[in-house]
Amino acid sequence: MISQRVRGLKAYKTETTPAKVKLSSNELNVDFPDYVKERIKEEVSKIPINRYPDPKAEKLKEAIAYRFGVKPENILLGNGSDELIYYLSIAVGEFNRGVFYPVPTFPMYEISARIFGRDRVEVPLDRNFDLDLPSSVKAIQEKDPVLAYFSFPNNPTGGCFSEEKINAIRNLGLFCVIDEAYYHYSKRTFLQEALKSDSLVILRTLSKIGMAGLRVGILIGREDVIYELDKMRLPFNITYPSQVIARLMLTEFYDLIEKEVQKVIREREKLFESLRSFKELEVFPSDANFILFRVKSMSADELHSKLVERGVLIRNVSYLPGLDGCLRVSIGRSEENEIFLQALHSVLSL
Amino acid sequence: MISQRVRGLKAYKTETTPAKVKLSSNELNVDFPDYVKERIKEEVSKIPINRYPDPKAEKLKEAIAYRFGVKPENILLGNGSDELIYYLSIAVGEFNRGVFYPVPTFPMYEISARIFGRDRVEVPLDRNFDLDLPSSVKAIQEKDPVLAYFSFPNNPTGGCFSEEKINAIRNLGLFCVIDEAYYHYSKRTFLQEALKSDSLVILRTLSKIGMAGLRVGILIGREDVIYELDKMRLPFNITYPSQVIARLMLTEFYDLIEKEVQKVIREREKLFESLRSFKELEVFPSDANFILFRVKSMSADELHSKLVERGVLIRNVSYLPGLDGCLRVSIGRSEENEIFLQALHSVLSL
Repeated sequence: MISQRVRGLKAYKTETTPAKVKLSSNELNVDFPDYVKERIKEEVSKIPINRYPDPKAEKLKEAIAYRFGVKPENILLGNGSDELIYYLSIAVGEFNRGVFYPVPTFPMYEISARIFGRDRVEVPLDRNFDLDLPSSVKAIQEKDPVLAYFSFPNNPTGGCFSEEKINAIRNLGLFCVIDEAYYHYSKRTFLQEALKSDSLVILRTLSKIGMAGLRVGILIGREDVIYELDKMRLPFNITYPSQVIARLMLTEFYDLIEKEVQKVIREREKLFESLRSFKELEVFPSDANFILFRVKSMSADELHSKLVERGVLIRNVSYLPGLDGCLRVSIGRSEENEIFLQALHSVLSL
Repeated sequence: MISQRVRGLKAYKTETTPAKVKLSSNELNVDFPDYVKERIKEEVSKIPINRYPDPKAEKLKEAIAYRFGVKPENILLGNGSDELIYYLSIAVGEFNRGVFYPVPTFPMYEISARIFGRDRVEVPLDRNFDLDLPSSVKAIQEKDPVLAYFSFPNNPTGGCFSEEKINAIRNLGLFCVIDEAYYHYSKRTFLQEALKSDSLVILRTLSKIGMAGLRVGILIGREDVIYELDKMRLPFNITYPSQVIARLMLTEFYDLIEKEVQKVIREREKLFESLRSFKELEVFPSDANFILFRVKSMSADELHSKLVERGVLIRNVSYLPGLDGCLRVSIGRSEENEIFLQALHSVLSL
């Protein structure tokens, strides 16, 4: 009696191959120092785990509001951005109206559209991995979707779409979601526009700045939009430990996080140059904490598994539309990037 | 551009009034001893919070499977049962088919039906708070819902419905969900039937046995049913700290939890007798960790707020259909129940 919508889905693939160097999930590869762990232990020991968490997660929201320069009333928290994407795909327009997104992109937009039985209006990116505006406008005019997702910068291609093109699509009257999961690495944002609009929200997350284990996604928008979306939120969706630990990290250790983010940005530039020196690779510019590249001398599958043999796990994205031969590597710590480059060198020069 | 479905919703009400004695959320009122907290601190300090959690939560599932006498393949975990109820209300049948549940009951069945725009087939309980079978059969035959929820025992009335009546409704061909959130206090279950059926699942939770802060809901069913429902699951829906702490509690401290549960059952019998000695109250039998009662000498609102003035928070459920004048009190520790009874005595004898 499970619906056709659900039977037709494939289970979401997550890579759990163990590896010495894990550069596959765009995490912040930092091992927090002992004094951080001591504070976490201290705070966690105060949690009455038998009690429901604060349904409004007020203290955590205050900390996020302060760091992100908004008011708590502009924030909706999710169990990761994934949950917020579900909420948006449920709440915006009726289920018989479609969802627009360029491809390739973050898979959750497609998955959520499928789950709720919504039409998927997918338009391939242009050859620079930017939005194809004429094709997008045409598809939107023909199929009349009500909701649009833009991963900004785009995962897995790495660059930010042109803001002019996004604005041109916004002007067609869709409710637009700008997914700024990698904001800390791009510093480009639609935040101010979102605070003023009834048809634009942005997504942020703590997952890319050192807290993926806590599952805290952040939706920012105008108060009245947040008020409506909040009605669908599971009442206790942020666990007690996540509320406490995330708040601690944002209040006491945000400087440390920002330093680590800066390191990643510097490492990204170094890694980009190193990858470009391989004649077998085509490397794409990145505004995020990962780099996409295409291998020309062997298949992506082969390169991927040979790197795994050498203890390095990166993400094979060659199955995505327009990404033949492509792989995505997260920026790790300096020594991890070095190991990756050495492994890559040894595989490519075989 | 938010849909009418969502605009029409009210925000979920959660009671966050601070109180010295909190008997409002059916938590297990246990303050875990220091040796438990030490182990929690130890395990939490090993968590790399910068990493995504295990998407399959395998170790936690193994611990749950062992304690609940099933296989990991029979388990789907949710961020609380609330998330699992959303998944069921999405996955079972198409959105144009209705959802059946008796009223009054746990509000999440109604909320999830509304969010997904599904017809609500609500049938009032009979005067004993059992299912009204003739009216239920009639409503089901008329409105043809595809999904049915039974809170077993029922929150907030406290008793278990007759199993024969549930089975009679099952025979009408609906997909049935038996929500056994309070199983540890009732010891009555449809577990064996669920493992054999393609149209029956049960819900359990860790929230009522000392881990509400961790948000771990458990759906148990036949492997092929779990396989389909798992496709909708947010890939990292159980946070890293929750996976680690819940597993620790279930493996090392389950005896302690069972002892605390037994205490609550003993306290329930004591509290039931004490409440029955008040002539101003009508008290209903309970298979759960709470007791429903009706106050006849004043309004429920008045009793509720006078108890709050005395530092005791219980749940006012008098706004629910059929529950005029009713309040629900969670079973607390012996000394908390004593304070509640004293406060009640002082309010009623004013």
